Amino acid sequence: MTLILSNDDVDKLLTMPECIEVLEQAYVELADGRGVSRTRSDCLTPTSRDDALYSLKSMDGVVPKLGVGAVRISSDIVTWPKKGNTLVREKVPAAPGKRYVGLVLLFSTENGEPLAIFPDGVMQRMRVGAANGLGAKYLARKDATTIGILGSGWQAGAQLMAVCAVRKIASIRCFSPSADNRTAFSRQMTQMLGIEIVPVGQPEDAIKGADIVMCASNSLDHIFFERWIEPGVHLSSIKLPEIEPKAVKRANRVAIHVRDAKPIHVATKDLVMPETTDGRGWSSGDAIDFSKLPTLPELIVGRAEGRRSAGEVTCFLNNLGLGYQFAAAGALLYRKAKECGAGQDLPTDWFTEDVHP
Amino acid sequence: MTLILSNDDVDKLLTMPECIEVLEQAYVELADGRGVSRTRSDCLTPTSRDDALYSLKSMDGVVPKLGVGAVRISSDIVTWPKKGNTLVREKVPAAPGKRYVGLVLLFSTENGEPLAIFPDGVMQRMRVGAANGLGAKYLARKDATTIGILGSGWQAGAQLMAVCAVRKIASIRCFSPSADNRTAFSRQMTQMLGIEIVPVGQPEDAIKGADIVMCASNSLDHIFFERWIEPGVHLSSIKLPEIEPKAVKRANRVAIHVRDAKPIHVATKDLVMPETTDGRGWSSGDAIDFSKLPTLPELIVGRAEGRRSAGEVTCFLNNLGLGYQFAAAGALLYRKAKECGAGQDLPTDWFTEDVHP
Repeated sequence: MTLILSNDDVDKLLTMPECIEVLEQAYVELADGRGVSRTRSDCLTPTSRDDALYSLKSMDGVVPKLGVGAVRISSDIVTWPKKGNTLVREKVPAAPGKRYVGLVLLFSTENGEPLAIFPDGVMQRMRVGAANGLGAKYLARKDATTIGILGSGWQAGAQLMAVCAVRKIASIRCFSPSADNRTAFSRQMTQMLGIEIVPVGQPEDAIKGADIVMCASNSLDHIFFERWIEPGVHLSSIKLPEIEPKAVKRANRVAIHVRDAKPIHVATKDLVMPETTDGRGWSSGDAIDFSKLPTLPELIVGRAEGRRSAGEVTCFLNNLGLGYQFAAAGALLYRKAKECGAGQDLPTDWFTEDVHP
Repeated sequence: MTLILSNDDVDKLLTMPECIEVLEQAYVELADGRGVSRTRSDCLTPTSRDDALYSLKSMDGVVPKLGVGAVRISSDIVTWPKKGNTLVREKVPAAPGKRYVGLVLLFSTENGEPLAIFPDGVMQRMRVGAANGLGAKYLARKDATTIGILGSGWQAGAQLMAVCAVRKIASIRCFSPSADNRTAFSRQMTQMLGIEIVPVGQPEDAIKGADIVMCASNSLDHIFFERWIEPGVHLSSIKLPEIEPKAVKRANRVAIHVRDAKPIHVATKDLVMPETTDGRGWSSGDAIDFSKLPTLPELIVGRAEGRRSAGEVTCFLNNLGLGYQFAAAGALLYRKAKECGAGQDLPTDWFTEDVHP
């Protein structure tokens, strides 16, 4: 049978500590060359709407040790609305019922069969969280107890879950521009984590004295600056523009998620792509040479050195996601779903064939 | 609703003339830079069997004019059994029920929704056939009436269907090494096409005097040689080793399917890949510069010249498939399936989501 799982299923089954554990294993496989990851590709074309484009993205990965391969597909209608003075890239929930379209397909490396199909949303934020959690595990001070987080959205929650899984966190302060959002987020996450989260009105109030500073925004501009750096802090970012390049350069130790991972870009000729900084990271003048930075998998297997002293400033930049992460988290999800009978079974015959393709 | 279609559905709905027509349209879009195609990627890893590897392939394409994007996925257990003196690459039907795993997912470029999911097998041969049919349409003599075909397998049938859709064919001769196979194939295709197909015992008997010579084998060696070339013939091949490079060089006009289309290859480090010529084409010494050859889409839009005279020798090499072909044929299939209510409807909600991924 091929399992159809929902985001609710994924939410119930995929706990952050387990997700971190399986990704850590999978990164070892990747660092040692046994795991296989195919960079994201983006196909971009017009759609019938003048103000939108169609984007078909895919990324693949296989973790032979876990017996699972995954393809993650995003089928998006993308617009560029104005937010303040900048154009923001925004997915439109255009599918029936005002929904987004992101899918993960899991396959067995043992017999090729399609194991499961499920939406990517919940797993997407869990794997981003887990990667930054592992960044903190290998770079933050062992005795870190306080977090300052900038951001209060969907990604920010998973970021906190992840660091609380790798460090004994006792206190968290949260800043985001909207008072309503940061208050609601702090209340909700306090309940979930059992650690008091205090919403604060200025980013400096969140950051000051924090052992770990997490950026988890959808900002197109820098939100963390060099002048805020304190000795011994660990900086964490889920997208490049968040941390000012000068601040990254000040860190004693910087690791990235993936090296040499430029997405494959194919687009309709002369397609007009609105200019944004979103997803691009820094401008070229910022000149940080990514090819020289160690990656998270290298850190995990000890090929790159982690924090050397309590006073060092460390930094983890989650610069690009991998289909490979969906294969690892997917293997865990599938095992747990089978154990408890979650999801809907469809006949595997619907997704296999008797003719040699 | 998201449609689940079977190979039987595809077989009933996708006629060769329509498939050729929609691909011809789609190639115009591709030649003019409106259609978008992402080259195939292959992820290769070990599996638990010592004599086999796991292969996860994917290819994407979007035809905005038809409103459809497609991702085609192959999840294969691959072995290299010995066939005569050579190792042959062979997919093993290892999925439950001894089945293969190849899937096509179709998406709407209008709202992103998943339109349909179906196995790739039947469409795979139809699009290969249609491409070679279009090669013949643009390169073979207008008054061509006879075909000599080398091969009697799954692909050979679609090759004949395709050329019979673009030329008034009156007579076909078929050679393949096994007398049983060529006889059964000839009987079956005679019935399907309403044109008598004569099985013959030597390749020369199939080829002699034929206006169109089609290679449709799974041979790892050359099966058509320069010495067999007659003036005015059109040569057609579905994989590179079939036609001896010297014969290709003798042709006055040669077109290929795709230029610059090296698949993206990622594999487990030090993976032992048995040496075969399968899928590789010619050895490097054969030196035909593909970067200088026109493509089928260029031929269709008139950017490359077709046959100039009755005496010219022409040649079409179907050198690599495209996910783009599945988007085009998929758009046709989906429209026809909706018209006649074919397939099984699944709730689109199963494949979409309310969270921003």
